[in-house]
Amino acid sequence: MRMVDVISRKRDGLEHTPEEIAYIVQGIVDGSIPDYQLAAWCMAVYFQGMTPREARDMAVRMAATGDQVDLSPLPGVKIDKHSTGGVGDKTSLVVAPLVAAAGIPVCKMSGRGLGHTGGTIDKLESIPGFRTELTLDELFAQVKKIGVGLVGQTGNLVPADKRLYALRDVTGTVASIPLIATSIMSKKLAGGADGFVLDVKVGDGAFLKTKEEAEKLAELMVAIGKNADRKTVAVLSNMDQPLGKAVGNALEVREAIATLRGEGPADLEELSLVLGAQMLVLAGAEKEVAVAKAKLQALLDSGDGLRAFGRWIEGQGGDPRIVDDPERLPLAAHVVGVKSPRSGYVAKWATETLGLISMRLGAGRARKEDPIDHSVGLVIEKKLGDWVEAGEEIAKVYARTAAEAENGAAEVLAAVQLAPTPPPKKPLVIGYII
Amino acid sequence: MRMVDVISRKRDGLEHTPEEIAYIVQGIVDGSIPDYQLAAWCMAVYFQGMTPREARDMAVRMAATGDQVDLSPLPGVKIDKHSTGGVGDKTSLVVAPLVAAAGIPVCKMSGRGLGHTGGTIDKLESIPGFRTELTLDELFAQVKKIGVGLVGQTGNLVPADKRLYALRDVTGTVASIPLIATSIMSKKLAGGADGFVLDVKVGDGAFLKTKEEAEKLAELMVAIGKNADRKTVAVLSNMDQPLGKAVGNALEVREAIATLRGEGPADLEELSLVLGAQMLVLAGAEKEVAVAKAKLQALLDSGDGLRAFGRWIEGQGGDPRIVDDPERLPLAAHVVGVKSPRSGYVAKWATETLGLISMRLGAGRARKEDPIDHSVGLVIEKKLGDWVEAGEEIAKVYARTAAEAENGAAEVLAAVQLAPTPPPKKPLVIGYII
Repeated sequence: MRMVDVISRKRDGLEHTPEEIAYIVQGIVDGSIPDYQLAAWCMAVYFQGMTPREARDMAVRMAATGDQVDLSPLPGVKIDKHSTGGVGDKTSLVVAPLVAAAGIPVCKMSGRGLGHTGGTIDKLESIPGFRTELTLDELFAQVKKIGVGLVGQTGNLVPADKRLYALRDVTGTVASIPLIATSIMSKKLAGGADGFVLDVKVGDGAFLKTKEEAEKLAELMVAIGKNADRKTVAVLSNMDQPLGKAVGNALEVREAIATLRGEGPADLEELSLVLGAQMLVLAGAEKEVAVAKAKLQALLDSGDGLRAFGRWIEGQGGDPRIVDDPERLPLAAHVVGVKSPRSGYVAKWATETLGLISMRLGAGRARKEDPIDHSVGLVIEKKLGDWVEAGEEIAKVYARTAAEAENGAAEVLAAVQLAPTPPPKKPLVIGYII
Repeated sequence: MRMVDVISRKRDGLEHTPEEIAYIVQGIVDGSIPDYQLAAWCMAVYFQGMTPREARDMAVRMAATGDQVDLSPLPGVKIDKHSTGGVGDKTSLVVAPLVAAAGIPVCKMSGRGLGHTGGTIDKLESIPGFRTELTLDELFAQVKKIGVGLVGQTGNLVPADKRLYALRDVTGTVASIPLIATSIMSKKLAGGADGFVLDVKVGDGAFLKTKEEAEKLAELMVAIGKNADRKTVAVLSNMDQPLGKAVGNALEVREAIATLRGEGPADLEELSLVLGAQMLVLAGAEKEVAVAKAKLQALLDSGDGLRAFGRWIEGQGGDPRIVDDPERLPLAAHVVGVKSPRSGYVAKWATETLGLISMRLGAGRARKEDPIDHSVGLVIEKKLGDWVEAGEEIAKVYARTAAEAENGAAEVLAAVQLAPTPPPKKPLVIGYII
């Protein structure tokens, strides 16, 4: 087989054979296919796409290029939740303890944030003492004991994806639905869960801006999961504004705690219950989504979810007192309120911009190696459709210096649009791909 | 400027600015753009194309990356003829002496054959003593004295194209109309002629199989030439069968001589007159194509064209006696007639296959560094629409060994299709792009 012929077949819109997919993945991981041929192939995939069969073969082959986690030492059906990334998306911090409180083990590997989206690992590390680098043995022992555990991506997971992603990043081929789907799902498959609840974000703050793109991605990811014999569902959720109000690591942990107290923003609570309910159903704990959701609501209302969060934090070496005393979390010294000069309904938040403002304040990374500051970020007080009086505060900026806070406040102000009438109400949950 | 952004713009169907084209070409020639980014860009161009403005900018910038020949020491308007490559295409051997006989200087740089198509340089080198590696001074002196001269591509012509073509060759991006057009035209522009007659071949034996593709290429090449202030016309000509009958270097020189004697195949004579007439008109020697064609026909009939060929050969050190005594040309020792087992009209010649059979006999190169044998090849005796009796000879194979001759004959037989009725007659000259 010659790579130039494989590229030409994809260029001409033909479906790769399983042997061709195996050849490509082998060539990625052993270096026998040079970067320039992979780059041309990625661009051909960008234009010609992949069939579900090709994408499934690719993801399964990619998963097999590195370590594959064996979760079988843990009891029951293990379900993982994955988000394609948004601004202020701290659902994992709410969902994991709630699902654990329902008796379903949650054993999760998660990533760090990059660009305008945050990562769960970074958020948890804002909790004093919290360790995210457990060994697999430590992780398993904790999940068996406490019911929940979360680590950073461990070992040599999908090395083929590392090479391919680095190449896509510099060749204009990141935004390819099948390459995104195979990249995500190869890592999910290697992570060893029996099923996946995929939260596919749509909107200005998400990677995918339109419902159509998000549906395509969700359909392909679900097809990959199912064809690889994993239970898989996708939830399409709105990202035209930050989820909840807090953007930035410790601020988001505070909001997750508030939500587990029943005092969080409605959208964050709702999406957490929706995603958690899907996990319970996939795990076989409930048949009906509505019943599963009511069960999680009860666990939230009773405080069982919050207590599970406390046990989780303690299990990984963190200070569990933050659950009752969030003031123990780091908080930036310089806080500036963003005041609206005009009245109106909030019609639009430039959500990706809010993510980037938070990143520049220090909450996120422009490049992988950048350090982050857990104490900084934004709190968006007025959400889409809210009425704002002239002079009223619409957000707060938490920064390391007064200058950064003032600068951030000006940027946040430029990111909001007010209108004389409220914008059409969009549903938080846009749809399901089952 | 970042190459990843330039790639993304092309990927999204935007037109490159002149600055972006300059940046790309600079990056090709100085190596500052890595192969993997160029490969992704080439594939994006494959799908999104180029506007005439982009293609013109690209060709002009590419031409400027190396030596640019100055033909101004030669008198008059210098017109170059270029063929996109076919099987048995020896028109240059007929056109160059005819046009020179008409008093228009012909000063040509030409290439070697690769794959199923032959090169004029290889054909001329089958003439004993013929030198194709003259210096530019020698070439100019000869053209001034004799009116015609032809050399292999000299000096460092369009180094950017060398790098880009090598990359396209292994990334499935050779078959991109704008990349073909810019590659050809950058070399033509660097060659220094005042105008170009482009013979764009269409059909089974050509690089482009359909009229639509050929028209696109011709239109883009003509636009590049004109926008670079060169007189340019394109002739679309049929390549559903070899041009003339001979395929292979010395065999083609024999056929060119026969044609200049008025005894050649009708299609070769006709296309030579058509292309030559366009050259005369572009050079300003005639206003009317029909008048120019009649003039060349007269020079052919009078033997002036043949005598010009003799002077040309002698000027470049070859044995001019071959013009009157073609038996002095090399001829393979093993000749086998290909006999048809059935009767019928010749309905189809797998023309690219004939080119490849000839290549494998030794007349051409699979790779650039392969040696060639001037004495071998094919003579196709029955052309499309000819009636063949069972047992009649349809072709001859000239080979180095009896085994190769027999094998070639079997392959030629497999390349012909006979039918009970003659195929629809297709015109030799399909159209003009002016």
